[in-house]
Amino acid sequence: MSKGHPQPAFVLVRPQMGENIGAAARAMWNFGLDRMRIVAPRDGWPNQRAVAMASGAGRLLDEAMLVDDTAAALEDCHYVFATTARMRGMTKPVYTPEEAMRVAAKKIGAGEKVAVLFGPERAGLENDDIAKANAIINVPVNPEFASLNLGQCVLLTAYEWQRNRIEVAPVRDEMAGTVVAEQIEIEKLAEHYEQRLGDAGFFFPVGKEESMKLNLRNMWSRLPLTRADVQMLHGVMRQMVRWKERG
Amino acid sequence: MSKGHPQPAFVLVRPQMGENIGAAARAMWNFGLDRMRIVAPRDGWPNQRAVAMASGAGRLLDEAMLVDDTAAALEDCHYVFATTARMRGMTKPVYTPEEAMRVAAKKIGAGEKVAVLFGPERAGLENDDIAKANAIINVPVNPEFASLNLGQCVLLTAYEWQRNRIEVAPVRDEMAGTVVAEQIEIEKLAEHYEQRLGDAGFFFPVGKEESMKLNLRNMWSRLPLTRADVQMLHGVMRQMVRWKERG
Repeated sequence: MSKGHPQPAFVLVRPQMGENIGAAARAMWNFGLDRMRIVAPRDGWPNQRAVAMASGAGRLLDEAMLVDDTAAALEDCHYVFATTARMRGMTKPVYTPEEAMRVAAKKIGAGEKVAVLFGPERAGLENDDIAKANAIINVPVNPEFASLNLGQCVLLTAYEWQRNRIEVAPVRDEMAGTVVAEQIEIEKLAEHYEQRLGDAGFFFPVGKEESMKLNLRNMWSRLPLTRADVQMLHGVMRQMVRWKERG
Repeated sequence: MSKGHPQPAFVLVRPQMGENIGAAARAMWNFGLDRMRIVAPRDGWPNQRAVAMASGAGRLLDEAMLVDDTAAALEDCHYVFATTARMRGMTKPVYTPEEAMRVAAKKIGAGEKVAVLFGPERAGLENDDIAKANAIINVPVNPEFASLNLGQCVLLTAYEWQRNRIEVAPVRDEMAGTVVAEQIEIEKLAEHYEQRLGDAGFFFPVGKEESMKLNLRNMWSRLPLTRADVQMLHGVMRQMVRWKERG
């Protein structure tokens, strides 16, 4: 398995135990994945326990991108999956690992950058992290007993990537010729709207402010916006502000 | 998931660490499997480390069949798989976990009893154990790095059992609980934006007016907007207009 073949990045968000980071690296490398990103690991970095557990997959830790927040980990990504055990009424597509990695293989085959977010051991991903994702991955476990840990969740997702990679040849997307917006562009669009709508008094009443912002962010991240869409939506908002300022 | 539905038995052959036995129990029960058999565990039985690790899946350990040798674990079985990382020139069918669990589901559906053998942590199954199997299960891992442990091998096999058991995939509404906007709603949204942006002087210069409107309409109709999205986008525009009108 050649290093550096096109593949999704696996992003560990605020992982707690070094052992689990190492186990995730091993799980990934078992299935030929070697692009790990780590957001704000609880015990700092580098982590000797992670290194000890990773053993033969230590290179993934050496080469991992270390960042302070989830947004920074996703800047260059076009499509983001969030793994979660709980469905929280988020209006995003929900995929099994199999379906998700099939979608990922298609997008990667079309030249997009794809990331998968994995939450911290106990709490899982926060709503703010999930709001940055285009879709959810949910492993269909026993409803009476759902106890997959971080390493296991990474393992199953990596396994499905490998299964689908064998089957899927690069294909051209039906939106060939358009440029899908990168995560950082979506983030800036969300910020722009949030700020201007804040100025305009949109987030009202005060108690609903956070959930309104979250809904809006969820919408932006879920929609398959092109770079041109993002520019147009910026233009829409700028024009409304200009209009207001002209009085 | 009802206890006792027809399923394969998972047989741990001479497992060494109690933690791994407990992890195997958890991995199984995550996917609705609860029939464990244990052959000559190195540290005796019961094993407190296994119990501690199994936590919510402790029942599997209580109910596990404990035997002295592999033959005794397989007495009532019609068809046996052996999991192994190495192909040792045995003239048996070799299946991926997916294929194997598909075969298992068919045989179990036809009333046969099926078992899957998992070897001890380091050494794996011995040739004598493998000789008792009808077929081999081999997980297609990275040839440069094959390091699945016992719990992970059990996890992937149990996961594939569960995937195959759901013969007709439950219809997963892509966006459970959300209502996709109807065409008329998209049309009204497009009109609303077009009108207000017209008031605000967005469609400028005059010669580009039509193509700008077309781009905007193309975007609205291409995006997979939900009814909630449409309402929010109406709200965004209404608020910007209200802000302007307040002066």
